[in-house]
Amino acid sequence: MVVVMAADASSADIEAVVARVEGAGGEAFVSRGVQRTIIGLVGDVEQFYALNLRALAGVSQVLRISAAFKLVSSENHPERTTVSVGGVPIGPETFTFIAGPCAVESYEQTLDAAQMAVAAGATLLRGGAYKPRTSPYAFQGLGEDGLKILARVREETGLPVVTEVVDANDVALVAQYADMLQVGTRNMANFALLQAVGALRKPVMLKRGMSSTIQEWLMAAEYIAQRGNLDIVFCERGIRTFETATRNTLDISAVPVIHGLSHLPIIVDPSHSGGRRDLVLPLSRAAMAVGADGIIVDVHPHPELALCDGPQALVDGDLRELATAVRTLPPLLGRTLALRTGAASVLKH
Amino acid sequence: MVVVMAADASSADIEAVVARVEGAGGEAFVSRGVQRTIIGLVGDVEQFYALNLRALAGVSQVLRISAAFKLVSSENHPERTTVSVGGVPIGPETFTFIAGPCAVESYEQTLDAAQMAVAAGATLLRGGAYKPRTSPYAFQGLGEDGLKILARVREETGLPVVTEVVDANDVALVAQYADMLQVGTRNMANFALLQAVGALRKPVMLKRGMSSTIQEWLMAAEYIAQRGNLDIVFCERGIRTFETATRNTLDISAVPVIHGLSHLPIIVDPSHSGGRRDLVLPLSRAAMAVGADGIIVDVHPHPELALCDGPQALVDGDLRELATAVRTLPPLLGRTLALRTGAASVLKH
Amino acid sequence: MVVVMAADASSADIEAVVARVEGAGGEAFVSRGVQRTIIGLVGDVEQFYALNLRALAGVSQVLRISAAFKLVSSENHPERTTVSVGGVPIGPETFTFIAGPCAVESYEQTLDAAQMAVAAGATLLRGGAYKPRTSPYAFQGLGEDGLKILARVREETGLPVVTEVVDANDVALVAQYADMLQVGTRNMANFALLQAVGALRKPVMLKRGMSSTIQEWLMAAEYIAQRGNLDIVFCERGIRTFETATRNTLDISAVPVIHGLSHLPIIVDPSHSGGRRDLVLPLSRAAMAVGADGIIVDVHPHPELALCDGPQALVDGDLRELATAVRTLPPLLGRTLALRTGAASVLKH
Amino acid sequence: MVVVMAADASSADIEAVVARVEGAGGEAFVSRGVQRTIIGLVGDVEQFYALNLRALAGVSQVLRISAAFKLVSSENHPERTTVSVGGVPIGPETFTFIAGPCAVESYEQTLDAAQMAVAAGATLLRGGAYKPRTSPYAFQGLGEDGLKILARVREETGLPVVTEVVDANDVALVAQYADMLQVGTRNMANFALLQAVGALRKPVMLKRGMSSTIQEWLMAAEYIAQRGNLDIVFCERGIRTFETATRNTLDISAVPVIHGLSHLPIIVDPSHSGGRRDLVLPLSRAAMAVGADGIIVDVHPHPELALCDGPQALVDGDLRELATAVRTLPPLLGRTLALRTGAASVLKH
Repeated sequence: MVVVMAADASSADIEAVVARVEGAGGEAFVSRGVQRTIIGLVGDVEQFYALNLRALAGVSQVLRISAAFKLVSSENHPERTTVSVGGVPIGPETFTFIAGPCAVESYEQTLDAAQMAVAAGATLLRGGAYKPRTSPYAFQGLGEDGLKILARVREETGLPVVTEVVDANDVALVAQYADMLQVGTRNMANFALLQAVGALRKPVMLKRGMSSTIQEWLMAAEYIAQRGNLDIVFCERGIRTFETATRNTLDISAVPVIHGLSHLPIIVDPSHSGGRRDLVLPLSRAAMAVGADGIIVDVHPHPELALCDGPQALVDGDLRELATAVRTLPPLLGRTLALRTGAASVLKH
Repeated sequence: MVVVMAADASSADIEAVVARVEGAGGEAFVSRGVQRTIIGLVGDVEQFYALNLRALAGVSQVLRISAAFKLVSSENHPERTTVSVGGVPIGPETFTFIAGPCAVESYEQTLDAAQMAVAAGATLLRGGAYKPRTSPYAFQGLGEDGLKILARVREETGLPVVTEVVDANDVALVAQYADMLQVGTRNMANFALLQAVGALRKPVMLKRGMSSTIQEWLMAAEYIAQRGNLDIVFCERGIRTFETATRNTLDISAVPVIHGLSHLPIIVDPSHSGGRRDLVLPLSRAAMAVGADGIIVDVHPHPELALCDGPQALVDGDLRELATAVRTLPPLLGRTLALRTGAASVLKH
Repeated sequence: MVVVMAADASSADIEAVVARVEGAGGEAFVSRGVQRTIIGLVGDVEQFYALNLRALAGVSQVLRISAAFKLVSSENHPERTTVSVGGVPIGPETFTFIAGPCAVESYEQTLDAAQMAVAAGATLLRGGAYKPRTSPYAFQGLGEDGLKILARVREETGLPVVTEVVDANDVALVAQYADMLQVGTRNMANFALLQAVGALRKPVMLKRGMSSTIQEWLMAAEYIAQRGNLDIVFCERGIRTFETATRNTLDISAVPVIHGLSHLPIIVDPSHSGGRRDLVLPLSRAAMAVGADGIIVDVHPHPELALCDGPQALVDGDLRELATAVRTLPPLLGRTLALRTGAASVLKH
Repeated sequence: MVVVMAADASSADIEAVVARVEGAGGEAFVSRGVQRTIIGLVGDVEQFYALNLRALAGVSQVLRISAAFKLVSSENHPERTTVSVGGVPIGPETFTFIAGPCAVESYEQTLDAAQMAVAAGATLLRGGAYKPRTSPYAFQGLGEDGLKILARVREETGLPVVTEVVDANDVALVAQYADMLQVGTRNMANFALLQAVGALRKPVMLKRGMSSTIQEWLMAAEYIAQRGNLDIVFCERGIRTFETATRNTLDISAVPVIHGLSHLPIIVDPSHSGGRRDLVLPLSRAAMAVGADGIIVDVHPHPELALCDGPQALVDGDLRELATAVRTLPPLLGRTLALRTGAASVLKH
């Protein structure tokens, strides 16, 4: 932490800052300049923050320099982590393809979507039983019935299941059915939910809040990690900007930025970021090329009948192109398409 | 809802849209232009949305034109609502001044802050017992002990209490102590929480999500209203933009925009929007002048010792200026400073 | 400037930074912490910036702490400046009301608008002869013919004229007719234009770039000031955010922030920020209350026929309410309505 | 264009809208619904816009549906355009690699950078002689001396030259030296400059305004095209958002969105969007994979001494990796690395 004094700060002002820092057990190094004085603080940053140095006389700025996340940071954990979801790895050596319907609507629709997913090379099934919707008048999901459908489809296809949980109270229930729990964009700062999934022994996919900085996202992961669960996968799904041509603006740079700051994997959601079917394929390719550890894509057997986000679900033709891309692009960057441990390859190479 | 066809849409494409709308019990009016064709839909908008018309061949855009909120809209409820909080009105004829510490830290600190608030003309006490914090390493609030302190201070000072609830599970407990429940900016889209406070018979203050549009904010209020609770007060607290000189950008225009769209009251939080003590007074004055129904302000007897947001808490001198402003500005705009029903005036006019 | 070293920076890395700073004639103060080392630099910041310290081994962050504007800063010029425009002051003791049509369309329309402006208490006339328009197919202004109309209307009404210049080549011509030159939002970073108006002996109104930070805005003013012209008035006109209910988001906090950082005056444009007629009056009141030094408002005798921005032009009824506001609100905050020096009052108080 | 009437609009209000549209030579189709009435307009959109229908009684919204750009639109020009820059194509069949120093500082530095560029596979040289800088105290470029250096280096290396022009007055001079003129992000809405380059017979690279929507960007291109110059290449270079981990947020989705709306090529600038050397390689790969027609990259022989944007310039090691990527990724997507017509291949495949 660095304290920048105002140009007209007095010596007494400077001494008061030093005294407060030292009183809290820290060290303060004073650099007196012609124009202004800078004080570098060494010690426990959280404690310094509680001192409210900004409120002292003569203080112009207080700059934080140390990241507030520890467990998810790569500083003390340089090698990258691989998270295993029902035997399927998400990590630095593989590219993991997750696909399925935005919302679970029926057994038939979910099974059809899962079979489309398998045919395209996916090894994890996504599908929402609980849908957080902006409008109270929109379809909210099938709840536990949806979870049961997902479990039946897993039995049928062998695909481990990723599904969203929207309330801390539902965590135990959802965890009975899911192989990985998803925390959605609207809940990235729902700290009760973060703590609840942190207490589980199941992997968690943490979507970025639509207006969260990368720093805040890392701190949300830290909430989960603090409770003992480090099986966390970040998912970039677009941020809110002034541009309206796309539903959200995919922040593709977040992938290398997260890889620089954290040891945890990060995947990309090209369906929800663009909100348009025609963008799914190019954005998926961009995700592979930028170094993402996977993608999560909406597929639906009949998107024109979908109860949720049909306009962005991939249909058969596009899916074949995507299947080609996931087989050809990742190997160029030193990755293999992720398979389930012990499972026979689902793709003919 | 209006469907805009692509320039190269065929007659068959147009007929397919009409057929689908009519099949769902709606009416479709076709306007064929030189460049393109527009189809106006009449009927149930939510049902049309589920038709996924955007996915049909030849469809270029689907424009939504009807607001998705009904109960909170002023369209069917032209007269403005007054919400009563423990006998203190928030509505079109008054200007309500809410003040108190950001976080409840101790009985003494809360009582001192409440007495500062009363002296300045406030008639409602704010104070947080549950604090949602970005960092898991920051002070998280006293919980139920904090609620008990608020209740004791209410007994002492007569000020009804406004306090935040951050988890649907805590709603019943917080409602035992509070006169008004606050849903904070990070929880504006926490639908489980919105539904839980909607089931109460207590007023709710709904802060704007830091990256929520006004439309989404109104829909969040609709979630609460749908469960039967229409005692809702909006609170504008700044939105996230590229500007970093202030903690958030106070969207002062939201006040007249909400007054145009909804019958519910709206207040302004000048402390959290600016995040700087020196902005609280000018932004409070702006809130009065723009027509807000009240303000909610952080005060702290010793801001330099505050465990939360000390840098933005008003101290004695500024508070006196604010006390003058709340007595002089609102009357110019046809409002009186809100008092508690049956209470003797706390201010010498 | 402060250099933050990475956690794993070596002593040699630290010494290399110090050597480079000292080689450039600066001083470097090293604060070695348990987790990381901070180096405070003292000397010429611009020179340090050119050193590209970020590119050195072991450097994690370079934090700039000194503002890059000098002439417009209040640090060396604590008393506030009053800019005089044809005898009308804009400064700390007055509230200046500028009104007129968005675009000059004809002599009659401009004269009618000017008379509406005078009747409402305005003492400066705005009107555009050169209009920067997003679409090349939209009305672009009358050019020099428009300037001549403005000059004739000034003769008729006595109102000094504020008008926009959009090209460095036009500055000399526009200056022949105008009392104050306006640099518009799209040109805030047009450095050739800034330098051209900086070489004038005429006041300049510098609108904020729609996506400019306050820091960048101050630096744009510095470009003007560097050429010798310090008669600069800032004009806040809304910034671009995700909110679409208003054309732009009026950043009302910019007024006290600019007053804290610069000695120059700042006014508010409530017409272009909201883009809606119904917001002009409440936003004007907010501007007065927050401490702005004036407002600039669109008026048009027949807004439904306006060639530019008709939907936001005030008409007669609203203008009477605004006339009342400019007479009653500023005095409450210690300001008088600005008049022309030596001119008889144009308002019957 | 579609006019949406308010719920309480009268029949007379509706008729007034119809009458005004028909009076202007347009057609109006009325769709009366239970809740509200919609009027579809057919005819000249620009003319309708001038009618200011939003200002009429009973009008709630006016929705624009027709794009305001024609010449650059793919609607009337479905096949993609290839722009030739000194014999080097930028278009759908190639991937064009442009590289060079951010600013021209000396002949030696520019030549060294150009040779680095050639070695890595670049066939166009970038380099700035005029630098628009936020701070008036920063290095502003060498001006015509810089242009002369670029011309000498072109002679030496055979690389055609891309360089920025920042003022309409300089266009003729810059065009004497350059093979392609660049309009920078700060000038995307400098209409005088757009018109000046539109009158040339030289290709133009149009960078996206840092806060411009894709729609506005297309309209800026339309300004150039209107003057007769259709040799335009878009360049996505990141937009301004709330995220501060990167200098700007690269909007990678803009590539397929522009390809869907316009027949013109689009390239990506991974150096200025991220502002960090470590992001150049992953963002370049993302640009190739998403389908961009090229990239423009900063290289500098000694980035630690660069007078401009050194921290983002690629150095030798990274450049070798980029050289590999430009040879291997584009062919996977059906493109070849762009060469100069008639030039011997500069790369050993």
